[in-house]
Amino acid sequence: MKIQTFLCVAALLLVAWIKLPDSEGTTQQKNKDTLPSWNDGPTKQAIVNFVKKTTTEGSADFIPAAERIATFDNDGTLWGEQPLYFQFAFAIDRIRAMAPEHPEWKNQQPFKAILEGDIKTALAGGEHDLLKIMMTTHAGMTTDEFSKTVEDWMRSAKHPKTGKRYNEMIYLPMVELLKYLRANDYKTFIVSGGGVDFMRVWVEKAYGIPPYMVVGSSGKVKYEVSKDGQPKLVKLPELNFIDDKEGKPVGIHQYIGKRPVFAAGNSDGDYQMLQWTTTATGYPRFGLIVHHTDADREWAYDRESHIGQLSKGLDDAGKYGWVMVDMKKDWKTIFVK
Amino acid sequence: MKIQTFLCVAALLLVAWIKLPDSEGTTQQKNKDTLPSWNDGPTKQAIVNFVKKTTTEGSADFIPAAERIATFDNDGTLWGEQPLYFQFAFAIDRIRAMAPEHPEWKNQQPFKAILEGDIKTALAGGEHDLLKIMMTTHAGMTTDEFSKTVEDWMRSAKHPKTGKRYNEMIYLPMVELLKYLRANDYKTFIVSGGGVDFMRVWVEKAYGIPPYMVVGSSGKVKYEVSKDGQPKLVKLPELNFIDDKEGKPVGIHQYIGKRPVFAAGNSDGDYQMLQWTTTATGYPRFGLIVHHTDADREWAYDRESHIGQLSKGLDDAGKYGWVMVDMKKDWKTIFVK
Repeated sequence: MKIQTFLCVAALLLVAWIKLPDSEGTTQQKNKDTLPSWNDGPTKQAIVNFVKKTTTEGSADFIPAAERIATFDNDGTLWGEQPLYFQFAFAIDRIRAMAPEHPEWKNQQPFKAILEGDIKTALAGGEHDLLKIMMTTHAGMTTDEFSKTVEDWMRSAKHPKTGKRYNEMIYLPMVELLKYLRANDYKTFIVSGGGVDFMRVWVEKAYGIPPYMVVGSSGKVKYEVSKDGQPKLVKLPELNFIDDKEGKPVGIHQYIGKRPVFAAGNSDGDYQMLQWTTTATGYPRFGLIVHHTDADREWAYDRESHIGQLSKGLDDAGKYGWVMVDMKKDWKTIFVK
Repeated sequence: MKIQTFLCVAALLLVAWIKLPDSEGTTQQKNKDTLPSWNDGPTKQAIVNFVKKTTTEGSADFIPAAERIATFDNDGTLWGEQPLYFQFAFAIDRIRAMAPEHPEWKNQQPFKAILEGDIKTALAGGEHDLLKIMMTTHAGMTTDEFSKTVEDWMRSAKHPKTGKRYNEMIYLPMVELLKYLRANDYKTFIVSGGGVDFMRVWVEKAYGIPPYMVVGSSGKVKYEVSKDGQPKLVKLPELNFIDDKEGKPVGIHQYIGKRPVFAAGNSDGDYQMLQWTTTATGYPRFGLIVHHTDADREWAYDRESHIGQLSKGLDDAGKYGWVMVDMKKDWKTIFVK
């Protein structure tokens, strides 16, 4: 080989190599298998087919990138929710941590029951007591202070059954699905009944979803400026928005402002979000339900469950064409760790 | 030149050329002058300096991309607002369009005054009448129907003084600033007292800001499923959120979930947003006030204006280090068209 030819080839390789980091995301690469934790089968195939047809220019089913809005429930869809919503486990741990400053709680329900480790009694008071627990632990501090308690809890608390940290009970196949959609220019949002201030602390790292793409339930906050001129936002013990059931399409409208083309949930709390998404005309739509079928690796529950009940969704999945994920059959791995 | 050398150079140029479309956004190109409608001077220099120092890795002032949150007021900051907020001009036009179906309006204030072209009298009733006008024109229809009326109006209505369509009264220098920030990995949000449903219809095209990055005032909406199974969202005549003054930091928290590092406004309605942004510690912060100083090309107003009053902001700009845009001096061009 002549020295000139060698230099030429070397220079070309160099330029090509410099170019490489920029070329992620070409159509060919985007559509490669990025769902390694999903078993081959009709569920995975349905997802891949949908993404391929909606991102292939010239296809009758093509969806412009700006319209590729995908919404995901969180509890039971992106991470576990048994035996209690993890945010409620956080609230219980907060009650315990706050108890020394509240000696009166020893004689006050639902606090008494929580401190005695009797969660069933604590929840027996219904919605009123639940709200009391949530407001006590989620209000009366600045937004920054609250974020810090969530961060600390996430770093230290462990799930009673699995012994994992709660953010290790995130579903790996769903994280792959989020990434796969984003690699195909879908915008991925969380639309969850969970508290938005609770989620935003950790979802960016966990799912790659920034705070402004998280829709959730919220309390009111108040802007205050202290005497030394420092402003703060204080969390008030007053509900602002409940992002569940009929609230999900409402939340999608108020926070996202576009009707999704893709929605994923796992319970009847997601029914209206799935319905709102998949009955729209114009572009193709995709509804996905994560069905908890794996008692060995996770939990198996649907119609009779107190948490994450799925009944109406099971009845109507066929009618609306919603694709069911059978966790036991469809997922090679459940958790990220 | 030998044929091999020629081929080699040609091949290198070819590869380099193929690479070009991917290389937009390298640091050098990002920081080139992308504010052509801004006159050289301290205001432009302050903006460019801030962007440069916060995006230079290794700089003490470097801000990670995920934290580069920039919030912009809309009325009077990104487009005009005189002699009446443009959304109010829309409401007046809607009252006129709806009048044939409401013969009773001929004898009912504030409708009577509007139909007689006497806007001053229509507004004399204060907040109560203003709310009546807004609720009449912004509720009682589906979200889709409302979007369509906004679209139609934006295509046809013209400003009484300039004769321009309202979306031609967008400030070109501010559109350039939005683009410049985005080219430097800033996320640009609108945080406006204006109605979110009104803005989202046209801001994506006008400013390159997608609906989910628009925070604004809103009414409540309700999810309903008709007998034939078609869901819809109906706009209710009930306030949901007022995104003005103290409401702006609240809206930033509830909708964006991160404290901005850059904020731009033009009136005292933006005071708290600027205060919330620029008093934060950790990263450098930038506050910008668009001061309406150009009576010839636009309008000149501040302390005494009914619309877009700027008084407290003028008093405290120095204290907080907010940079003032002098529209007359700093802007070569005002409007996009």
